[in-house]
Amino acid sequence: MHSRDSCQDSDVTDPLGGLRDLFRLPRGVIYLDGNSLGPLPVATSDAVAQVVDEQWGHDLITSWNVHDWLRLPQRVGDKIARVIGAGPGEIVVADSTSINLYKVLMTAVAINRRDARRTEIVSERSNFPTDLYIAASVAAANGLTLRLVDLDRDAGLVPAADVVDDRTAVLLLTQVDYRTGRLLDITSISAEARAAGALTVWDLAHSAGVAPIGLGEADFAVGCGYKFLNGGPGAPAFVWMHPRHASAATQPLHGWLGHEAPFEFSTDYRPAPGIAGFQVGTPPILSLVALECGVDTVLAAEPLGGLTALRAKSISLTSLFIELVEPLCVDHGLHVITPRDPAHRGSQVSLTHDEGAYAIVQALIERGVIGDFRAPDVARFGFSPLYTRFVDVWDAVARLADVLDTGEWRDPRFAVRTAVT
Amino acid sequence: MHSRDSCQDSDVTDPLGGLRDLFRLPRGVIYLDGNSLGPLPVATSDAVAQVVDEQWGHDLITSWNVHDWLRLPQRVGDKIARVIGAGPGEIVVADSTSINLYKVLMTAVAINRRDARRTEIVSERSNFPTDLYIAASVAAANGLTLRLVDLDRDAGLVPAADVVDDRTAVLLLTQVDYRTGRLLDITSISAEARAAGALTVWDLAHSAGVAPIGLGEADFAVGCGYKFLNGGPGAPAFVWMHPRHASAATQPLHGWLGHEAPFEFSTDYRPAPGIAGFQVGTPPILSLVALECGVDTVLAAEPLGGLTALRAKSISLTSLFIELVEPLCVDHGLHVITPRDPAHRGSQVSLTHDEGAYAIVQALIERGVIGDFRAPDVARFGFSPLYTRFVDVWDAVARLADVLDTGEWRDPRFAVRTAVT
Repeated sequence: MHSRDSCQDSDVTDPLGGLRDLFRLPRGVIYLDGNSLGPLPVATSDAVAQVVDEQWGHDLITSWNVHDWLRLPQRVGDKIARVIGAGPGEIVVADSTSINLYKVLMTAVAINRRDARRTEIVSERSNFPTDLYIAASVAAANGLTLRLVDLDRDAGLVPAADVVDDRTAVLLLTQVDYRTGRLLDITSISAEARAAGALTVWDLAHSAGVAPIGLGEADFAVGCGYKFLNGGPGAPAFVWMHPRHASAATQPLHGWLGHEAPFEFSTDYRPAPGIAGFQVGTPPILSLVALECGVDTVLAAEPLGGLTALRAKSISLTSLFIELVEPLCVDHGLHVITPRDPAHRGSQVSLTHDEGAYAIVQALIERGVIGDFRAPDVARFGFSPLYTRFVDVWDAVARLADVLDTGEWRDPRFAVRTAVT
Repeated sequence: MHSRDSCQDSDVTDPLGGLRDLFRLPRGVIYLDGNSLGPLPVATSDAVAQVVDEQWGHDLITSWNVHDWLRLPQRVGDKIARVIGAGPGEIVVADSTSINLYKVLMTAVAINRRDARRTEIVSERSNFPTDLYIAASVAAANGLTLRLVDLDRDAGLVPAADVVDDRTAVLLLTQVDYRTGRLLDITSISAEARAAGALTVWDLAHSAGVAPIGLGEADFAVGCGYKFLNGGPGAPAFVWMHPRHASAATQPLHGWLGHEAPFEFSTDYRPAPGIAGFQVGTPPILSLVALECGVDTVLAAEPLGGLTALRAKSISLTSLFIELVEPLCVDHGLHVITPRDPAHRGSQVSLTHDEGAYAIVQALIERGVIGDFRAPDVARFGFSPLYTRFVDVWDAVARLADVLDTGEWRDPRFAVRTAVT
């Protein structure tokens, strides 16, 4: 049986417990929305102030050399590589997740276009909208069809063979479903897709930083800097390509920083080899420096067991939340829609409610528990093993019980919709 | 006759002289590279610290509503609109100049594709490389040809009719040539191109913030945030579209923030109307806030005569530099390659040297005068009317004379190439 005391005991013995001190978390808030925007690392304020005041302010244009701003997208990329299990030189930070998806999908389609039978991009109907929008645009531009499949919710076991065949040019999936938190096994799905001749593109938005990724035979991946990597609002995204495509790849956004020799100012585009050719324009240095600080918080776990330890704690946190929430479900019309099997669960737990979850999320925020709502009916709670304590899980569920028991969530003020929740 | 004293007198009576106090400029440095990276505005440090510590750090995810991060790309866009003479709601800040070029070129090509005769994108051979790379990529993707023309260097008078005909789908030009500083007249060229049935796309990288733009009948424009707008290293870029295309435009980078209703999380992309549909992914908030502070420094000139006054001072500065440099030219193998006629000159002056300008730029930097070098042979000096003083021009030329008279630039240490100069 769990109790608040047993949760506090878990925190005391948690080998990752000290990592919480790397963050500046507001008092009185239980932040369960790091899957949407990671909190501020303690180191970020000074790092950003230093790049603003000393590098930009004092060293001005010379900072591109003196402070090696030019290599920053690669340097931070190499750090992210350690987080997601890629090799050095395989990742670059650039642009947004959406734009990186466009680059890799256009590249993947170009690679597989040789085979005229392969007329489809396959994705999942429940994929994050931007993934579907970009995929539809790339399909239309290339005379392909975007076929959307419904993977079994409790899957991750779904054999790729069921959705991929010799019509498939590219399989585009997100490892962790942004609504349900369901986790897919990249290694096995990518291997099966590859055996069927399809290329795989993975969106790691909700998994990078909280689980070993297992890229295996995957072809391309993109990911987000501002969720579990704690890189700050709108942090630039990253892009990875399997080294076997290093010479095959040319994405269509030919910008000067993706050129083999940018400062030659040559009239003709010659892509830089490998992932460096996925850079386009000048990167936003202030946001990049903040991203580096965020990635460093994940790397701080390396001496403590790294991603394996983070994943173990993540599972403990989400399992605890589910166990504590379940007794509330029957009486209060609440449903856990996240897989019970931790092997198929990311670092979030999602709930629905018979009368709609929106107002419940708002009422919880007023009680200092920040989760979020995703249309049409999902309350999401993200658990970062870097700073979420077991006692936070206990307290969050206790406050949820209060919100439900008192019925306070029915107050009309909680029904007022805001742009982002 | 000019003298150091007369320059100081000009500074005393300069109605824009007080704007220099908006910047934190390092002591002992004459910064003539604001056309590459504008200096740090005084207001930026606190604004960035506030968004990091209070908004992100304290208000976390709620900042998207509470601090209206969601509208930031439009709010800063509206400020840039005042700088370049566009209307409110016509500009959005997004991504990089290169990526915005891709969006507008793809859109322009789609609009003009109805006319099967129009098989060419026309640009200038000396255009900034990224413009040519993106144009070549867009041309290839659409089965068009990229035709490069050589406009007369002292032109701006070039009748568009000479380069545009009924084969031209799109004319892509940069208003101020990054090497020579030559300025084109957007109003007249766009009107002529429009009469010939071609759409115009303008890159305002080196003109936004230092001259009234005169968009007139132009169709699309993009521009850079980190040059004369002082938005910080890699600041996000902006994109403008003439309102007549508001319903016609769909660019292919379909991201969730370009959706009509992003938080509906709909499976199908419905572009937001007008320029809002040129947004793609989540914007880099820290860099955007710094950009806003930069744009504010230009808007601070509004009560002092605005862009007209800035342009007048810009011309005075560049004219003075040319006048002072000219006596050095004959004896020292120096050549001014920027148009003498101020009507055809941006806010920079460029020099070449018979033995190559690279080492001269380096020697000047050692003497505290920061300009830059652009391959193959150009020394560039940018003059921002917001913070450059007339006495700075005098002193810069005096130090250039010293560098040449002493021959110190021949020291081998000045020949060592760095990545960016």
